[in-house]
This record gives sequence, C-alpha cells and structure tokens, in this order.
Amino acid sequence: MAILERHDTGAVAHLEMNAPERLNALSDEMLAALQAEFDALRDDRSIRAVILSGAGKAFCAGHDLKQMTAGRQAEDGGKAYFKDLFDRCARMMMSVQSLPQPVIARVHGIATAAGCQLVATCDMAVAAEGTRFGVNGVNIGLFCSTPMVALSRNIPRKLAFEMLTTGQFIEATRAAELGLVNRVVPGTDLATETQALAETVAGKLGAAVRIGKEAFYRQQMLPLDQAYAYTGDVMVENMLYRDTKEGIAAFIEKRDPDWSQ
Amino acid sequence: MAILERHDTGAVAHLEMNAPERLNALSDEMLAALQAEFDALRDDRSIRAVILSGAGKAFCAGHDLKQMTAGRQAEDGGKAYFKDLFDRCARMMMSVQSLPQPVIARVHGIATAAGCQLVATCDMAVAAEGTRFGVNGVNIGLFCSTPMVALSRNIPRKLAFEMLTTGQFIEATRAAELGLVNRVVPGTDLATETQALAETVAGKLGAAVRIGKEAFYRQQMLPLDQAYAYTGDVMVENMLYRDTKEGIAAFIEKRDPDWSQ
Amino acid sequence: MAILERHDTGAVAHLEMNAPERLNALSDEMLAALQAEFDALRDDRSIRAVILSGAGKAFCAGHDLKQMTAGRQAEDGGKAYFKDLFDRCARMMMSVQSLPQPVIARVHGIATAAGCQLVATCDMAVAAEGTRFGVNGVNIGLFCSTPMVALSRNIPRKLAFEMLTTGQFIEATRAAELGLVNRVVPGTDLATETQALAETVAGKLGAAVRIGKEAFYRQQMLPLDQAYAYTGDVMVENMLYRDTKEGIAAFIEKRDPDWSQ
Repeated sequence: MAILERHDTGAVAHLEMNAPERLNALSDEMLAALQAEFDALRDDRSIRAVILSGAGKAFCAGHDLKQMTAGRQAEDGGKAYFKDLFDRCARMMMSVQSLPQPVIARVHGIATAAGCQLVATCDMAVAAEGTRFGVNGVNIGLFCSTPMVALSRNIPRKLAFEMLTTGQFIEATRAAELGLVNRVVPGTDLATETQALAETVAGKLGAAVRIGKEAFYRQQMLPLDQAYAYTGDVMVENMLYRDTKEGIAAFIEKRDPDWSQ
Repeated sequence: MAILERHDTGAVAHLEMNAPERLNALSDEMLAALQAEFDALRDDRSIRAVILSGAGKAFCAGHDLKQMTAGRQAEDGGKAYFKDLFDRCARMMMSVQSLPQPVIARVHGIATAAGCQLVATCDMAVAAEGTRFGVNGVNIGLFCSTPMVALSRNIPRKLAFEMLTTGQFIEATRAAELGLVNRVVPGTDLATETQALAETVAGKLGAAVRIGKEAFYRQQMLPLDQAYAYTGDVMVENMLYRDTKEGIAAFIEKRDPDWSQ
Repeated sequence: MAILERHDTGAVAHLEMNAPERLNALSDEMLAALQAEFDALRDDRSIRAVILSGAGKAFCAGHDLKQMTAGRQAEDGGKAYFKDLFDRCARMMMSVQSLPQPVIARVHGIATAAGCQLVATCDMAVAAEGTRFGVNGVNIGLFCSTPMVALSRNIPRKLAFEMLTTGQFIEATRAAELGLVNRVVPGTDLATETQALAETVAGKLGAAVRIGKEAFYRQQMLPLDQAYAYTGDVMVENMLYRDTKEGIAAFIEKRDPDWSQ
C-alpha cells in the first residue's frame, strides 16, 4: 500500500492518507506524495473535485515529531531541515488552494496541528460526529504558527486565539458553528455525504468552477474597487464560454444544457 | 408604474424595485434607476436611512439573463456589452456602500446571484421567514464571481465557497446565523420591522452616522495603526460638531438633546 | 486605593480598573495607569497571562464624558486635547495587542463604547451572564469610530454595523455567538473561570506563547504566501528553543517536560 492512496470515481478523485500507525502524520514522504498528486491533478481536466481523507483512527495528527527530532542530528541542530520542511508544507497547503478543482476534507477522529491546518486549508470540509480539532502544539512548546495562518482565515479571531494558546480541542459541532467545517454527519454517513458533495460540485461546468475558485481567493485580498474590476473581467470571460452560452440558453428555454465538457 | 418606486416616510426613503414579472432582475433599466436614486440621495440631507425592497414574489433574482443573451448579437459576441454591464453593476453596488445614509435590504422570497450580492452589499438586512438566498449561477455555467465579492465579505469562507460551487440555497435563519442578514421576522412583520430599524437609525444625529458609515468601510482595509490614526481624526471632527457637544451635554445633564439637524 | 489595582497570582497578573463611581471610565488617569502597567508587564518574564477587569457594577463604560467636556474650555474648543486623548487611547489599545502575554477581559455589567472596544481588543474575553455590550456613542451624537476598529475585527460586518448605527446593546450570549467573547459563565463563576483560563495559558511555554501571539496578529494582515514565509521562520526559531526540544522529546517519551522557564 502506498502512503497516499488514490481512487477515482468518475470526475471525483479521492486521496486517502495511508499511514494509520502514525495517525497520517505529514512526514517528508506524506508531504511529497500529497504534493505529487496535487501537481498531477492540476492539469487533469477529467477530475472536477477532490476528496482528502485519512485511513485508520484519525484524519491527520500534524507533523511527524519523530522525524523532526531525528532532523536535529544535523550540525546546525536541524535549522536547515526545519526551514525546508515548513517551506514544503506551506507549498503543499498553498497547492490545495491554487488547485483548480475544489478540495473537500473528509474528517474523522482527530485533526490536530498541521492536520487541523489541512482541514482549514481545504475549500470545504465534512466532519464525522465526534471529530476533535486542535492546534495543540503549544502543549509541547511549539506554537502552531503555520497552522494558524489557515485557521485564522476560517474562524473568528478570539476563538482561534483560544485554541492556539490553550491547546484545547473543539468538537465537530463547535467546528461547524465557527466555520471550520461545512457540516457534521454521523460517522456511518461520512463517506457517502462527502462523495455526494463532491459529485454535486463535479457536476457543474468545470471551466466555471475553475475560474471561480481562482477568483475566490484572489479577490478576497483586494480592496473593493479592485476586487470588482478583477471579478468583472472574470465574469466577461465566463460569459463568453461556449458552454455558458448554452447553459443560459437552456435555462431560458427550460431544458437541460448540452455541455461539451 | 416606474421600474423603481420611491416613497419617503419622514427621513426614511423606501426604494422598491418594481419589475415583479422578471423577479426584479437587475436589467439595464433597473441598474440605471437604482444608480440615479443613489446619486440623488447622496446629497439629500433630509434622508437619513434607505430601505431597498422588491415588489412581487421575490426581492431580486440577479441579472436579466434574457437581456444579456440579446447582447450576444453584437459583433464581438457581447464582450463589450458584458464588460460595461458588470462595470455598471459594480458601480451601483459600490454606491450603496459609499452612500452616506445606511441602506437596509428588506428581503423576501428569493435573493439570488446579483440579488444575493445586493443583500450582502447593503449595510444591514432584514429577511422574512422562508426567504432563500443563493449564488447559483454555477448551475447554468456562470460562476457568481462578482456576487462573491460582497458575499465573501459577509460570511465565513468555507460557507461562501459551498454556496458558490454547489449553487445550493440557504434559508433565512441560516443566513442570519452566518451574518448575511441581521434578523429574520415573520413575513407579516417584515415591512414594519424594517421600517422600525430604519427609523431608529434615522433618529440618530445625521452627521455622526454619515461620518461613521464612511469610516466603517475605510478602516477595515487598513492596518491597525493606520486604522486608529484615521478613526482618531474622525472622532476629533465628530467631537467638534455643535450637535455632538449638545448631545454629550444633554446626556450629562440627563435631558433630551436639542439638535439642529 | 489606586485607580488601577494590580494583584498577581503566580504567573497571572490581574489588573482591576478601580473607579466604580464612574463605571471605570477611561479617563486620562485610567489610560495612563493602564499604559504604565502594560509597559511594565512587557518585559516581565515572570508574568505569563494578564486578566483585566473592572471594580463595581460595570467592566467599563468608555471615555470619561465629563472630563472630555471640560476639555472644551481650551481656546481651540478641545481639538488638541481630543486628538491627544484618542492617540493615547489607541496607543493603550495597541499595547494590549502588542503585549507579549495574552490578555483576557473579565467582563460583567456593561462594556460600552471604548469599554466595548477594550473587550474586543483583548486577546480573549470571558463574560458573566447578563453582561451587556454596546457601541452606543451614536445615541449622544458621537459615532464610536475608534471602538469600531476593534469591534469590526471581532464580529461579522452587518452585526457590527447594526450595533454602531442603532446604539443598541447585545447580551453576553449573543456576544459569544458573534465571537466578541469566548464564553459566558454565571456571575458567581466569573472570577474562577477567568483565572482558570489564564492559568491554562500561563502554564504553557512562555517563549512559545510570546512568539505565537506576536505572529498571530502580524500574519493576519499578510497575503497567504507572505504569511507562510513569515510563520515558517517563526516555527524554525521556535523549534530551536531548548525547551521546545525538551517538550517534543518528553511527548515522544511519554513523560512530563523539564522546562527551564
């Protein structure tokens, strides 16, 4: 079994982290495998949505602390290794966001530290009842500084601060209230509910979702007038797609669209 | 009947979109009528609050798809028309925000695509029970890229992403939980509740609300130190108003203020 | 009794505003006393968390309106005084955020105007049931422009706008829903619950919390790639602390860490 399993169902790619004995820690190997899949998916027009899950008891427990500790043996105490590690991790996280296809985290068990960051980074997330989320590095003296980049862009400020400085976990229902996950479902329904959400997204016009996802993150950093100038251009481009012309015509004529993609 | 009806009650202007047969679509005519009213209201010191509503079954169903389709007949396939359309629409939306008076959306039925954008753009919103909100352009191959500029500045990231990529609707109570509307009331109370909110705002010192609304949106884009430097100057200016001096004096003396405006 | 009482319990400093007859208004004296304590705490490594509370019936009712009114006697009608006042107030608020130690507001009674700003500014807040929050300056003709800098960085946009323009109060439970406070507890438990939260934070590795708190606010203003570049460097620095090395080793070896600080 590979450290990252991929199974496609139609236009939905399902990536499953597969190192259950290490709670799917983001080891060098796991990061490389995730990066490789995201790089491969980027230009794969047959895939319209991606599900990310973890095998075994947990979604992901963050960085691989044993591997990091081994890195301290270097002459510089691990400094160069750690810098490279956090660079690779951030690159992988940003690849989730820059991937043209929406990425849905399918979360169960625990999602902690960089594992919680991964949930926060995905475009959407579905959680099993009872899942616990934490950015608990502070408990061992390592503040979750990189995870908070994603977390603080998902939930209200004071709640993010509390999670980061107390190291305490929140349950799935609370995560949904705060906006860290989209919905909570019974564990027995997790796979089917996440698949259904992915298929809903995959059933939309791929080109429209692609251009829309890119615009979603770009426009949020812009002042209002620039955001409108930019997204106005995106709308014009979208309007000129052959399939969008067909989609609108079909809607007006009350029939199903005949899309080429 | 005009495409946009205006009825003033004291210091409250009520604009009602009046193209019920088209679900108050933002046609060229509707956009022009809204822009004209906002331009007229800008310097009208007698109006202290604005209510925006829609006649008929729905608040607003977004752009006028039939008119947009007609625009495709041009030699460029509609490109220049679409660009101009989205420019005009964005200008109208930004006029809501730059209008000195608070604008309250009074929402019922449905608010979809650019209609949902209009709700998100208004300073406040009151919704009737059962109102449904969606940025559902993706269902016909047109991602709601301009609507998301406003939506993503109102609600948590993952929930906005879900609405945009699934095209699914949310109900009024959910919209209130997420921050897209301020409150939900029974349909029979919608008019009176919205009017009461508008009158509450209109009863405040107009100059203070004006300077405050402008500062509200400007300071949010600034780093903390610049935001404080700017709003500190706003506070000083506000303190020097004759009517603010009177308002504070009246408060200290436990009497009603004698305001000139 | 001093206008600001300080009592330390172990690594937790407790600052209590002590002008109950003025509802702990942020007078010149109160601002100076708060600033002096924050300046003193900045380099005090023995203190790991700070609690801020108010004596008497209320947490804090904002600026001292009588003192401000007295300031109008100057030749410039108070302009220079007001500018200096808002500068000093903003500096104090920013000192809360730039303080290396987490600051927890312990709130009861009312927190209004700059008092509400103080709650919004603190890193975390615990409120007694029934506490009321408002940015109600608009009621006397003085829009809460500086308070909104903090408030609008805590709660959803439309809800902040409503509080600012209507002057209406929200209750503690609503404040918790919106993210203005972390939790609501019975009044009889307020002191112990806040102390427990402070002690939880104070029990973490001080250097990790310090570097983390600074990064928390800095990274939020940065674009994603810059936020990751910056926090990646923070993580490397954190990893190289002797105590973090020990904390991670202890975790792997399933024992308690032997921290030097």
